[in-house]
Amino acid sequence: MQYPSKSIEEAVTEIARLPGIGKKTALRLALHLLKQDQQVSLNLAESILNLKQKTQYCTQCFNIADEKLCSICANLRRDKSIVCIVEDTRDVIAIENTAQYQGLYFVLGGVISPINGIGPSDLKMEQLFAKFPNEDIKELVLALSPTIDGDTTAFYISKKLKEFPLRITTIARGIAVGSELEYTDEITLGRSLNKRISYDSE
Amino acid sequence: MQYPSKSIEEAVTEIARLPGIGKKTALRLALHLLKQDQQVSLNLAESILNLKQKTQYCTQCFNIADEKLCSICANLRRDKSIVCIVEDTRDVIAIENTAQYQGLYFVLGGVISPINGIGPSDLKMEQLFAKFPNEDIKELVLALSPTIDGDTTAFYISKKLKEFPLRITTIARGIAVGSELEYTDEITLGRSLNKRISYDSE
Repeated sequence: MQYPSKSIEEAVTEIARLPGIGKKTALRLALHLLKQDQQVSLNLAESILNLKQKTQYCTQCFNIADEKLCSICANLRRDKSIVCIVEDTRDVIAIENTAQYQGLYFVLGGVISPINGIGPSDLKMEQLFAKFPNEDIKELVLALSPTIDGDTTAFYISKKLKEFPLRITTIARGIAVGSELEYTDEITLGRSLNKRISYDSE
Repeated sequence: MQYPSKSIEEAVTEIARLPGIGKKTALRLALHLLKQDQQVSLNLAESILNLKQKTQYCTQCFNIADEKLCSICANLRRDKSIVCIVEDTRDVIAIENTAQYQGLYFVLGGVISPINGIGPSDLKMEQLFAKFPNEDIKELVLALSPTIDGDTTAFYISKKLKEFPLRITTIARGIAVGSELEYTDEITLGRSLNKRISYDSE
């Protein structure tokens, strides 16, 4: 595609580097920015620069933070006896939005994935294991995605920590609320039957 | 939604101002940028700033340009006797990509749209009419979208310029190449029949 000016071409190239945005969408966004006030572009550019420059990672849980400790670790009202292990920050946001969890988090920064060449040393495993033995932590909730990689990572962590007096749990897997039984895939349905729970526990 | 840090929240707010990008996509893009090298964010921010600061509009055709004249108006090999009137820069890019047109362009910056409160004075109409009388221009191609607003604009221009010895044409409307007759809408099909062309002219 031929672009009318170099600045448009550069902007399209850079915007199209973002995941899920192609050249046509990038051009639409660039022309939209051109039509707006200069302030809109300034604010956008500044927020992108700040993003990388100002963002820190919490020294305790490796979640994104404004200061040394993230707002969750710094919150004295959170239950420090439970730590929930998640893959990345989006999972923290998702769990926080449920308002069902009052413990702390630990952000691994990914999951073990041999196919993508990601091993335990590429994640925050060492920092996780360095927390133990730890009398404060009574329970570890493995909240990883129910994929092969997620299951591998959960298995790896549980094996490494089995010597410590720790309750290791995982988020319940089963049929999603509101979904139809007949359309549920066989593995999920089979697992839901195997791991059935007593009715009144709900 | 609660964000883990202020810089993330600001970036999400700014990115989500772009058309077609919601808060969830904005968060995904922001976290993607965080994972990349600082240089990626720098390049993106710089290209967005340059976009607005360096982009000029061609003084002849009001297309986006790097200099006073756009690359098309500055090109001596283009046919200066034909001027193609389009709505915006994207139409210029679309027509240039066909490689079927060798004339010049004139970018109106929109179409007359009473429903959106856009009248001739909001467009580059004055600058267009100021070009006439002009012995160099023999033909005016109205390449506006076949919508009510596009047709209104075309009618307005043709009426204003009818006193000049000028051939006014419009891009052919009809059934798209590769489309099925039975699925074509009635208006397009009816118009294609009314404005039928002799077979060998293809």
